[in-house]
Amino acid sequence: MEFSIKRDYFITQLNDTLKAISPRTTLPILTGIKINATNEGVVLTGSDSEISIEITIPNQVDGEEIVTVTEPGSVVLPGRFFVDIIKKLPGKEVKLITNEQFQTLITSGHSEFNLSGLDPDQYPLLPQISSEDALQLPIKVLKNIIAQTNFAVSTSETRPVLTGVNWLIQENELICTATDSHRLAVRKLKLEDEDISDKNVIIPGKALAELNKIMTDSEDHIDIYFASNQVLFRVGHINFISRLLEGHYPDTSRLFPENYEIKLGLDNSEFYHAIDRASLLAREGGNNVIKLSTGDDQIELSSTSPEIGTVKEEITANDVEGGNLKISFNSKYMMDALKAIDNDEVEVAFFGTMKPFILKPKDDDTVTQLILPIRTY
Amino acid sequence: MEFSIKRDYFITQLNDTLKAISPRTTLPILTGIKINATNEGVVLTGSDSEISIEITIPNQVDGEEIVTVTEPGSVVLPGRFFVDIIKKLPGKEVKLITNEQFQTLITSGHSEFNLSGLDPDQYPLLPQISSEDALQLPIKVLKNIIAQTNFAVSTSETRPVLTGVNWLIQENELICTATDSHRLAVRKLKLEDEDISDKNVIIPGKALAELNKIMTDSEDHIDIYFASNQVLFRVGHINFISRLLEGHYPDTSRLFPENYEIKLGLDNSEFYHAIDRASLLAREGGNNVIKLSTGDDQIELSSTSPEIGTVKEEITANDVEGGNLKISFNSKYMMDALKAIDNDEVEVAFFGTMKPFILKPKDDDTVTQLILPIRTY
Repeated sequence: MEFSIKRDYFITQLNDTLKAISPRTTLPILTGIKINATNEGVVLTGSDSEISIEITIPNQVDGEEIVTVTEPGSVVLPGRFFVDIIKKLPGKEVKLITNEQFQTLITSGHSEFNLSGLDPDQYPLLPQISSEDALQLPIKVLKNIIAQTNFAVSTSETRPVLTGVNWLIQENELICTATDSHRLAVRKLKLEDEDISDKNVIIPGKALAELNKIMTDSEDHIDIYFASNQVLFRVGHINFISRLLEGHYPDTSRLFPENYEIKLGLDNSEFYHAIDRASLLAREGGNNVIKLSTGDDQIELSSTSPEIGTVKEEITANDVEGGNLKISFNSKYMMDALKAIDNDEVEVAFFGTMKPFILKPKDDDTVTQLILPIRTY
Repeated sequence: MEFSIKRDYFITQLNDTLKAISPRTTLPILTGIKINATNEGVVLTGSDSEISIEITIPNQVDGEEIVTVTEPGSVVLPGRFFVDIIKKLPGKEVKLITNEQFQTLITSGHSEFNLSGLDPDQYPLLPQISSEDALQLPIKVLKNIIAQTNFAVSTSETRPVLTGVNWLIQENELICTATDSHRLAVRKLKLEDEDISDKNVIIPGKALAELNKIMTDSEDHIDIYFASNQVLFRVGHINFISRLLEGHYPDTSRLFPENYEIKLGLDNSEFYHAIDRASLLAREGGNNVIKLSTGDDQIELSSTSPEIGTVKEEITANDVEGGNLKISFNSKYMMDALKAIDNDEVEVAFFGTMKPFILKPKDDDTVTQLILPIRTY
């Protein structure tokens, strides 16, 4: 293998490839980046066996020569270490020459590295996913969906399906659901493409978080392809592949209570900051519990830590329906939910002190956040 | 105690006070900030018993009303937690009211915190340091001195005096020396004030690092007062007090070899970056060793890690005196020394493969960096 490449461009692509690589892997070759030079350009692959990122660097980008491949070939080089070298090299160009024992000579300016590479045939093959039946989404919308649901996945492996987000496509609607069994986030989206077939998959939360990091604003749309146990996100020259979680996602629709007792219209930012302050004390108390009590349009938030002291916050509701109520909740869940509600005004519906309550943006049913209360009253 | 204060200004001063506070303290009251309100303003004190920071907030700053003290008094409030509260409060003003049991009510906007404070009489007294015989330095110069010496102090407590920087004042010259017994940094400064009496003290490296963080560019000069076992740095409204290290600092002047074999004039940045790259491999090898060999004006740097590979860097010297030499050194020490040499061109003098070598800026004797080689050739 022999090619030379523009160093700046190479660094950007290597950094994205690194995002799939974990230093803690059971398969040592997966700490490396696979480099495959062909006559069409250079393909970089990184993987931690859960997610894989494959980036194609074409010979030319916007008319500028990026890669010149003199001899096609492949090698696997130690990931983070190789990227550190490329970042620190002095020249604008880098040249890589790999011999038959996968010894790789890297030169740039007066600098010369000679690295022991690994046999690319030992690198696991990426799954082949059919490019049919794609779901296309604007990148902004996908980033939004991830921000509004992914925080609510479970971090515990007790019920593995809950560590992912359920993507349900039916009747040209995408419904994304995440829950850790203490709170639940739902985001609905009407699909413009009416030909997409029904799906019901669970995408790991960690994969969505990594995907979120590599989606740039330079592209408008992302194409999503589903296979039986894999999903492929294709954005520009990047293929991002994640395995799907196996198992049956619980039916969450029956969790939503009916007939609210009280509905409040609140300023999202004012409510968020009042909880943020009260949570300072709730956190020190070790339990994160905040009490909320309503009286007409006055909402009082309070928290107590026996050793440190007390806090009391007052806010005024914009709208009130129904009578008075006292309820306690985990401040972190409430703050996560308010952040996910992308709207200046939030509607909070309470169904009783012991029942889950629901938050959603005013005049908007696409996002719903449900939180279980804590029994203190 | 009762006063109200502009919140923005309060936050800045509290953040500086926090820098003296360590969460790991043997004396629980030292996790708190002492607040003392008088008719002249409010004094904040933080301490970890090694260093103390005392900040005076005057009633007015630049003609603007900052503090209004209604009832003088004192209290100790839980440090980091109190600062977090003040940062998140909604109003432009904060009001503090402390009762006789040191319960403190903090109000701002519709937010109300009630904290358990501690008796300020339990807080340790700061040492009194005479304001005579001050050494005055421009802040830029002091920052420079710290940058050029403090990195070389020892991090090991085996020889406690080496964890500090020796400040020697004699014949109107300040000589600052730091060494961890593998490398040594010296910075000399002619003093303009000819009346300063001779001194020989050891200032803890950690204290100088903290001092460096709170010295802002808003003031021009810093006043330094020495007591028998303390040093006080006064900058603007801030008093920064550190204890001095006890013991006898070793005489390092005999470490400097005489009659160099080779002297090189090198581009500082080019040399630094070549070592930085070679150190990537030296670090992976686990020993940080870089080999340097000279041949006329060509300098070759190399490093080998048996498992990963080799690196070779070539640079061209601007000036060469003397013959050829091979020497090995720790890349980190070399990079630290080059960073401390505040000059585009660096002079490196070698005295033999087994003897310490010396770095200094070209045509400048105020900074000298000495490094012991590693025996590999």
